[in-house]
Amino acid sequence: MRRYAIIGTGALGGYYGARLAHAGIEVHFLLHRDFDHVKRHGLRVETAEGDYSIAKPNIAARAEDLPPCDVALVGLKSTQNAALATLLPPALKPGGCALVLQNGLGVDEAAAAAVGADRVVGGLSFLCSNKVGPGHIRHLDYGAVTIAEFEPDPDKLPRGITPRLHEITADFHAAGLKATAAADLLLTRWQKLVWNVPFNGLSVALDATTDQMMGQPDVLAWIKALMADVVRGAGAFGREITDSFVQDRLDATYKMRPYLTSMKLDFDAVRPMELEAIFAEPLRRAHARGITLPTMQALYWQLSFMASRQASGVR
Amino acid sequence: MRRYAIIGTGALGGYYGARLAHAGIEVHFLLHRDFDHVKRHGLRVETAEGDYSIAKPNIAARAEDLPPCDVALVGLKSTQNAALATLLPPALKPGGCALVLQNGLGVDEAAAAAVGADRVVGGLSFLCSNKVGPGHIRHLDYGAVTIAEFEPDPDKLPRGITPRLHEITADFHAAGLKATAAADLLLTRWQKLVWNVPFNGLSVALDATTDQMMGQPDVLAWIKALMADVVRGAGAFGREITDSFVQDRLDATYKMRPYLTSMKLDFDAVRPMELEAIFAEPLRRAHARGITLPTMQALYWQLSFMASRQASGVR
Repeated sequence: MRRYAIIGTGALGGYYGARLAHAGIEVHFLLHRDFDHVKRHGLRVETAEGDYSIAKPNIAARAEDLPPCDVALVGLKSTQNAALATLLPPALKPGGCALVLQNGLGVDEAAAAAVGADRVVGGLSFLCSNKVGPGHIRHLDYGAVTIAEFEPDPDKLPRGITPRLHEITADFHAAGLKATAAADLLLTRWQKLVWNVPFNGLSVALDATTDQMMGQPDVLAWIKALMADVVRGAGAFGREITDSFVQDRLDATYKMRPYLTSMKLDFDAVRPMELEAIFAEPLRRAHARGITLPTMQALYWQLSFMASRQASGVR
Repeated sequence: MRRYAIIGTGALGGYYGARLAHAGIEVHFLLHRDFDHVKRHGLRVETAEGDYSIAKPNIAARAEDLPPCDVALVGLKSTQNAALATLLPPALKPGGCALVLQNGLGVDEAAAAAVGADRVVGGLSFLCSNKVGPGHIRHLDYGAVTIAEFEPDPDKLPRGITPRLHEITADFHAAGLKATAAADLLLTRWQKLVWNVPFNGLSVALDATTDQMMGQPDVLAWIKALMADVVRGAGAFGREITDSFVQDRLDATYKMRPYLTSMKLDFDAVRPMELEAIFAEPLRRAHARGITLPTMQALYWQLSFMASRQASGVR
């Protein structure tokens, strides 16, 4: 039986950790500000399909207090990844791996710097979940994850589907979660950006929900131009994202209920936005290969301006 | 002695008309909503250099009431250009010309459709002036105009500097205004867009003044990318805008006092923005020559969304 550590018990880590724990898997939650609250009141995880609350979860206030685990699920925002260097090593047993469920590029590298590239599994989560209070998570929709082995050199062959990917997806399946193992993490990460770049970015730039964006012809054209930039960025690394993949993302968004993106929730709550992983790092990498992504670049400039104005307290 | 009609006595038409009238030139002002107020109280034009108010201006409520003039100065917003078809013909004597002091592309064509291309002089005004009340104009800064003959075919030789350009600039000089005749209207229009596209557009998109934009590295990079798009658009028509011209526009903006652009003033006052002439038409024309201007295009999508949201009354 594999043992999981949840590094960052927020909307994402808390949700997956509680689901895994309810399936009988041993899960240890690392908490920071909410430690005392959860120690007293437990972890509340409400979903549309049922209640996954845990009255007495295994919790730790410091990574050193975690038992050595097989999998350390990184549930932090990527803006906090500098902390991985101290949080990950004590959480993992020899041979254990980090599971980086974050969006964007450069996030696996942050984990790899802490525990070594061969101990990093990257992942993407399509999840609508909010932390609504201390130790209190409300899951709204979705939850599927795609995981893949991390290969730091984009020009090397992807590492394919390994036994541990099968083991982790099996644990997720046991918990009733959708989980898929993918052969090529870099392709998967660029594919996720096809959605995240336009919808996270424009939700903040335009102060709009997904349905407002999709319903306006000019914004729809803008969304498509941003998606085309992401596709060209992926192409600079030999990763092909097909037209039908792009169309599927648009179709899926049409069908979604109106939705405020995570970046918009962060911006409205005056938390740092994940601009580095979702915008700056992909732009830098494409640029290093001689590819400019002008529509994405301009949106990044705008978001960066909005972030700096918010940080300076003006308006 | 030439006689002038001012078609649209607002921040621009009212200012230039009052300056010309104070120099002893015969000027007739076409007024719409403000007619009764100006008839009773006169035209107030305040400037930093002095007062150019006129107690008893020559005014008309309908174009048919204007005497036939040598020059009909178009002081409307380009968003109102559909009205030129009815306003211009009665205002001009045979051989008289329209002087279209508007930004963007397609504005001379609107006048030409009314009176013929050979009777259109295009012009650009660098002016900070606001209408602050009925018949009440407050001039803040600048005021130089550049005027040139309109040639509808961009591939034909520009029409050069004609006698009537000399006559009009002489009238402006007599009124103490800076005025220059230019040989190539299309070059001049694209050159003006080098400033208007980034600063009008971003002032609305970012809710920012010129100094806030220039002071933030990300926005400065965005400004430069927008200017580069305009330069490429001009290039599609064989018009070269030099790096030093672009740098001069940046340098001049650094030195300007903090400034809300006309587009921002329009947006804040819930008036239509001049998106068609400043963004849509240049984008269409470049596109017709196979040139995409992605940074400018994205900004246009954004402004267009903001305009439609404002028009729908949401937020």
